[in-house]
Amino acid sequence: MTLPPTNRAFRLRRRPVGRVTEDDLELVTEPLAEPADGEALVRTLYVSLDPSNRIWMSDMPSYIAPVPLGSVMRGIGVGQVVASRRDDFPVGAFVLGGTGFQEHALIDDANDLGRFTVLPDPLPAPLPLFLGALGHTGITAYLGVHDIGRVAPGETVVVSAAAGAVGSIAGQIAKDRGARVVGIAGGPAKCAHVVDELGFDACVDHRADDFAARLAAAVPDGVDVDFENVGGPVMDAVLLHLNHGARVVLSGMISQYEAADGGDGWAGQRSIGQLIMRRASMRGFIVLDHADRFGEAIDYLGGLLGGGRLRSHETIVDGLDHAIDAMNRLFDGTSTGKLLLRVADPDAPAA
Amino acid sequence: MTLPPTNRAFRLRRRPVGRVTEDDLELVTEPLAEPADGEALVRTLYVSLDPSNRIWMSDMPSYIAPVPLGSVMRGIGVGQVVASRRDDFPVGAFVLGGTGFQEHALIDDANDLGRFTVLPDPLPAPLPLFLGALGHTGITAYLGVHDIGRVAPGETVVVSAAAGAVGSIAGQIAKDRGARVVGIAGGPAKCAHVVDELGFDACVDHRADDFAARLAAAVPDGVDVDFENVGGPVMDAVLLHLNHGARVVLSGMISQYEAADGGDGWAGQRSIGQLIMRRASMRGFIVLDHADRFGEAIDYLGGLLGGGRLRSHETIVDGLDHAIDAMNRLFDGTSTGKLLLRVADPDAPAA
Repeated sequence: MTLPPTNRAFRLRRRPVGRVTEDDLELVTEPLAEPADGEALVRTLYVSLDPSNRIWMSDMPSYIAPVPLGSVMRGIGVGQVVASRRDDFPVGAFVLGGTGFQEHALIDDANDLGRFTVLPDPLPAPLPLFLGALGHTGITAYLGVHDIGRVAPGETVVVSAAAGAVGSIAGQIAKDRGARVVGIAGGPAKCAHVVDELGFDACVDHRADDFAARLAAAVPDGVDVDFENVGGPVMDAVLLHLNHGARVVLSGMISQYEAADGGDGWAGQRSIGQLIMRRASMRGFIVLDHADRFGEAIDYLGGLLGGGRLRSHETIVDGLDHAIDAMNRLFDGTSTGKLLLRVADPDAPAA
Repeated sequence: MTLPPTNRAFRLRRRPVGRVTEDDLELVTEPLAEPADGEALVRTLYVSLDPSNRIWMSDMPSYIAPVPLGSVMRGIGVGQVVASRRDDFPVGAFVLGGTGFQEHALIDDANDLGRFTVLPDPLPAPLPLFLGALGHTGITAYLGVHDIGRVAPGETVVVSAAAGAVGSIAGQIAKDRGARVVGIAGGPAKCAHVVDELGFDACVDHRADDFAARLAAAVPDGVDVDFENVGGPVMDAVLLHLNHGARVVLSGMISQYEAADGGDGWAGQRSIGQLIMRRASMRGFIVLDHADRFGEAIDYLGGLLGGGRLRSHETIVDGLDHAIDAMNRLFDGTSTGKLLLRVADPDAPAA
């Protein structure tokens, strides 16, 4: 198999303030070398777009070192091995791991997102699902609902960013566990999707002028679990309805990530005191910590999918060139479900 | 025993905004009746001043109904039974319970702070201690350190409002459990008290211009447990140092209570996202929920006190007339240790 002579990659030039621009991430074309001994080369097919991408570009204190200025932008992707000098990653194998935002990635075991994984052959599901419902996204939802939220039948669960990648799955898992599930999403179309397609019991539009009143009406028995993906005023509104002993699953605070390094609009959480008043707890978690649970989670999620009890929706943006626009779509609310970047066509022969 | 003809009491006339004034709490003189069948009458000796007093006056969502306008201001006190028509509260007994801010209180079992308790005879400790180190204050510190914080030997514990009623005890308990304990307090005099008198390992003055740098220097190994009494920017600064798996014991957020109903200065918590980054948890609790643990806690605290391993410090304000000033001292930082109001002299014969 002949490798192309060059690789296109996004390198981080500047830490963004607010939305990401081409001054922050530069698309460069660089020579592509054959893998050395102990290396394998992956052709990137899909890269996951995650709110964490935005965190990794900033220098806020985080669970992982910021992407160094000048480095290829970190990202989780799936790809196919196109050249290999190691036995565990044979040419032709589909793999999952920290490909980064680039056309080709070297597999080495020093990757800060952990070791690459070889996907089963034959593939039990379409490739995008390994970044979504059957990947870190679905596993995050699973751990949050099961381990952190300990959702019980009959409880009321609120899920913010309910039409988003993690939220859409978290709500469906909570339904599967017998909870009453109320989503929060931006706009009537997303709310309709959340109720009609995903099967949530209700959805509240946080852009509505009377959001607070609508939320109150949607949770007449209070909130036992807040599966929180957003933070900011949306979260504050939910905290005011916590029941005694409620759990806040702090999965994400997407409203904070742009503001943390100088962007506008972050006024801070004003309702944290409700955790005292309601004897409630809040717990943050990072899916990468729980590699020992991935197998169990994927089995569970695969069972739901196979049984028709989990609807997975992807928004796929085509072409590495569109990575920056795609990243920003996470923050402007114009995507539904799992947002992915298709870097190469998995059905086309490797170059 | 002849009762005086009148009772002086503070009645809530208006919900305060910012500091409490005489327009919010009115001192009234009202006729005092003999107790009816099934009632007993207590002469109030000491009333505890707690940040919760301020919460109870507001109508923010809380763990207990706000004090109704027109009612006697709620408060936890110790007193002596001066007239009784029930066998379980004999005349002369010292009792602990929801006396309110008034000279005399009726014991009935509908008190929203729970049933009154008869103190041991003879008293094993001075009366003020039953509102401080051996009362709800000390028990809050005990439960927070043991149950919520699960402080382990060698861990770093930060205690805000370290010179305050709960903080001063919490830090000493954490020391007793083998932790390294760093206090945060307002001003050099309080910090000296915290280190020299209370035995904390260090104390950081949050009023210092370089507070953030001083805090960083005081927690070189990060923070395993934040025993939080203050909230606001002080708490945000601590959250930036949380270690992986850290616990935030949300005991109080005194910086928020005045602002919650319209006061100035509350900008919200800006560092809650650190709970995700550090896989940390935060839990609120209310001591009144844990009546089943009071005995164990008092035994433990009594053991520390008796063994000279717990220093208890009280600031006692004399006279019911000074209740409003005393309440406000909780918020202006001019008291140290447990703040109490002495309503009557326990050694003087009942009127």
